[in-house]
Amino acid sequence: MAVRLRKQTELGERKIIETIRHHLAIMPKMPVPFGDDVSAIEIHDADVVVLKTDMLVGKTDVPPGMSLRQAGRKAVVMNVSDFAAKGVKPSVALVSLGLPRNLKQKDIVELAKGLNAGARGYDCYIVGGDTGESSDLIVSVSLFGPAKRDELVLRSGARPGDIAAVTGPFGKTAAGLKILLNNLQVRPNLRKILVESVLTPQARLKEGLVLSRTRSVTASIDSSDGLAWSLHELSHASDVGFSIDALPLAEEAERFAGLYGLDTAELALYGGEEYELVLTVKPECWEKAQQAIATVGGTLIPIGKVTAKERLVLTTEGRSHMIEPKGYEHFKSDSVR
Amino acid sequence: MAVRLRKQTELGERKIIETIRHHLAIMPKMPVPFGDDVSAIEIHDADVVVLKTDMLVGKTDVPPGMSLRQAGRKAVVMNVSDFAAKGVKPSVALVSLGLPRNLKQKDIVELAKGLNAGARGYDCYIVGGDTGESSDLIVSVSLFGPAKRDELVLRSGARPGDIAAVTGPFGKTAAGLKILLNNLQVRPNLRKILVESVLTPQARLKEGLVLSRTRSVTASIDSSDGLAWSLHELSHASDVGFSIDALPLAEEAERFAGLYGLDTAELALYGGEEYELVLTVKPECWEKAQQAIATVGGTLIPIGKVTAKERLVLTTEGRSHMIEPKGYEHFKSDSVR
Repeated sequence: MAVRLRKQTELGERKIIETIRHHLAIMPKMPVPFGDDVSAIEIHDADVVVLKTDMLVGKTDVPPGMSLRQAGRKAVVMNVSDFAAKGVKPSVALVSLGLPRNLKQKDIVELAKGLNAGARGYDCYIVGGDTGESSDLIVSVSLFGPAKRDELVLRSGARPGDIAAVTGPFGKTAAGLKILLNNLQVRPNLRKILVESVLTPQARLKEGLVLSRTRSVTASIDSSDGLAWSLHELSHASDVGFSIDALPLAEEAERFAGLYGLDTAELALYGGEEYELVLTVKPECWEKAQQAIATVGGTLIPIGKVTAKERLVLTTEGRSHMIEPKGYEHFKSDSVR
Repeated sequence: MAVRLRKQTELGERKIIETIRHHLAIMPKMPVPFGDDVSAIEIHDADVVVLKTDMLVGKTDVPPGMSLRQAGRKAVVMNVSDFAAKGVKPSVALVSLGLPRNLKQKDIVELAKGLNAGARGYDCYIVGGDTGESSDLIVSVSLFGPAKRDELVLRSGARPGDIAAVTGPFGKTAAGLKILLNNLQVRPNLRKILVESVLTPQARLKEGLVLSRTRSVTASIDSSDGLAWSLHELSHASDVGFSIDALPLAEEAERFAGLYGLDTAELALYGGEEYELVLTVKPECWEKAQQAIATVGGTLIPIGKVTAKERLVLTTEGRSHMIEPKGYEHFKSDSVR
């Protein structure tokens, strides 16, 4: 695949995170375990504040064709998406900006407008930050929101028999990134949909909030590192496996795959920068969950089942394959430089 | 002066921050106004969570001679210092790392050890974060701690007649930076003290916490942008002025100034990367404040008085000068590249 934008040092992102974690003292009684999508601190017994930081780096997270306004917005949205997965409403954000020396006043304005749009689009405010000079554009967003401890949806609650589901079809961003990175010629209507999915990502916050209130979701994660990786992470954290029998491929991604002779399963499983939620739902609560998400205009697409054995199996046309535990980050070794 | 490390795009840091703020929606009823050292969100009426983010960038914040471990530690300490100024105990930190591709496993270990040391030195834990690849080393730390709203010491409470004070003498970091940046030869004992002040900064957290409990401090800020700039910021936020009659110069800085024929007032006023607190104290509470800070091994040095007219005056040897409202950042135009 050629849709590789994000990369990391030779060590690989996950190895780096493991190394760092190994050298950090672990706080006793963390409300959310290390390695989930967010962190939290206890305020009172039942009250926690949820925290998240995620950094956008120009050269790896901003594809050609993405404006500074879109980049600023995306930096906020990618954090909101993690709150969505946990069922928590973010309330305020801090932003640390590393700004290349050549940026002009109008560039700063565009970036600020994007940051504000990203926050206000999810009813948040940016309340502080920091700026400094850097070689790359750096937009480090930290997001906070109060929550009830027992409303948090962690990665670790999936149980065999739960229904695996997603909040939308996959593959558009992988296709859109290919178009932007390789400057592919695609008819305008199709191009617009695919490219927009990359340039103006949407966090599934409404969906995540309404689902968490139904108490039907046992585990949840967003899909920013790709569907396969999200399933892998849920599998690992919940000590379960997945049997996937319906890959949720977007119609536009399918058309794009047809044009370029691409493997649709690859597009759906191993893309990245998607912000759908990947969740597991108690089977007896499935209808309640579907009805709840419909009230906010969302949709819940079943893609398979949670299984007892910790492995990921995809069954298509009667044949079973293992889904490799690889993610978007994994493409680093032959990435676009 | 040649102690210029930090710089910013051509626009200047403060202009950039103003531009961004102008394009952000302002949250109603913020517990801490935009532009103070920290932000806060309300949890319950009296309870807030205090938030702060500050980013260390390798090429501007890490002088020659500073190890990765020291850089990691410093990135945490510079955030803790802002909490110290507000009288708030930080409890957890998030860290976003931008890592140059050439870093090795052992470099990551050093960085992680420094981050952990910075947090644990102030009884904090690092509970989450993010990594990505970047050209510069980027260490963006966000810090959080619960607090009582009425215990926060803002920049805005100074009143004419209050005593202006600092928690330690100034000038060592300015001297230490000159030594590191220009590879100056200074005798080992002196060099060690000056250079250590840069490489292993100490946040005045114990001091800030114990002072805030005395309710004697009316306004406070740390001095990371230099003493002159800190006074300017307090002056601006509190709508008062300062009459400074005792510049708090460190003995070692004075010796260094003697060796190189430097202006001691310049060293004390316009250095940077100092982490002393600059505060204003109700005159009737001065002794209580001094006694309180002594209980944690700290010291409170009076440097002058708060005045009604919004200007900064330095009186030395019977002559008065205006203290220019310039800070560390201000040296950008002829900084070390």
